[in-house]
Amino acid sequence: MVQFSITDIQQWDRFYRGNFINCLSGFKSASLIGTVNNDGLPNLAIFSNIVHIGADPALIGYVNRPKEAAPHTINNIENTGQYTINHVHPGIVAAAHQTSAKYPLEESEFSATGLTEVYRAGCMAPFVAESKIQYAMELVEIIPIKHNNTFFVIGALQNVYLQNEDLVAPDGFINIANAGSITSLGVDAYYTTDKIARYQYAKPGKASTEIE
Amino acid sequence: MVQFSITDIQQWDRFYRGNFINCLSGFKSASLIGTVNNDGLPNLAIFSNIVHIGADPALIGYVNRPKEAAPHTINNIENTGQYTINHVHPGIVAAAHQTSAKYPLEESEFSATGLTEVYRAGCMAPFVAESKIQYAMELVEIIPIKHNNTFFVIGALQNVYLQNEDLVAPDGFINIANAGSITSLGVDAYYTTDKIARYQYAKPGKASTEIE
Repeated sequence: MVQFSITDIQQWDRFYRGNFINCLSGFKSASLIGTVNNDGLPNLAIFSNIVHIGADPALIGYVNRPKEAAPHTINNIENTGQYTINHVHPGIVAAAHQTSAKYPLEESEFSATGLTEVYRAGCMAPFVAESKIQYAMELVEIIPIKHNNTFFVIGALQNVYLQNEDLVAPDGFINIANAGSITSLGVDAYYTTDKIARYQYAKPGKASTEIE
Repeated sequence: MVQFSITDIQQWDRFYRGNFINCLSGFKSASLIGTVNNDGLPNLAIFSNIVHIGADPALIGYVNRPKEAAPHTINNIENTGQYTINHVHPGIVAAAHQTSAKYPLEESEFSATGLTEVYRAGCMAPFVAESKIQYAMELVEIIPIKHNNTFFVIGALQNVYLQNEDLVAPDGFINIANAGSITSLGVDAYYTTDKIARYQYAKPGKASTEIE
């Protein structure tokens, strides 16, 4: 195997290093976070570093870059306490990536990219109408990560909107691939997926067996 | 669209809800974390909730479930300060899933699943020999998430081991799909990936264009 030490990595060009380290931790979610500021101006930005924290209470976390680099989403969440998360499918991937451009605060990424904002009862933040899996979140806690000025943003799930009920298997598994949901890699790559298998709950002394 | 409110969700059976909420946040990494306890006994467990925190310093985070449910990995990291993260490919996915079984502390998941432990200079934790992308981490901080007794574990990258240099593109992007690295969904599903596109760094007023 070829080895790269942290000393090697620290000496690399910052864009090369950024691509490398972003890819190293593997495939991630590809999701658009919708927010609104105190003046009612909507914002939309793509995020990939999203994690499941727990199912009961239903908590989901995401990493927000430093405020100097990416202020709008986190500021809006701090001010309003609400946000939406919307899955990306191949039909909107180019527009979704385009939301990562540094638009001025007064320019909405919806109008800039052609994605359609939609509002629903109980949430002041906009959803992405084209997205087939959408959910509304309420802020629980923002944990500042002191080592690099990023933030771990924890939210509580409020409402889920699915394109159709058939996406949910009899055991609650959501077949997001059937909704076209994609996965992201690094800062700029997007992939469709093909199922290998689902496995039964693993038990010692019993080999992993496939579901179905 | 079909709507599920948090009130609906709270009334579901816990396994149904667990599947649903775990899938909702999207595709994730599929990685084996290797650790060792103070007596030198190795442990290996599959994790999916892994995020990129930053490239300089190179920080990667993961979510560890409550200690009552998943004590070994986090206890070993607290005690030794070191761990390895190893990508999963289709050839080892069944064994990787099997590491999620609740083996007693004294039983190594390596012997139980047939995966091969390998040790390298500077890291007391075991790597997974079959894995094509492996990296060594040093603990930086464990942040307790008070809302559900989980933990956000932050580590600093120390060394990276790749099966071959050709996995790295001229701009630092690691083509992990070419190494067979897979993505996970929910608590039990695994997927291969097909690239849609990489997009140029997005700029306002300029439509997203593909790289290459």
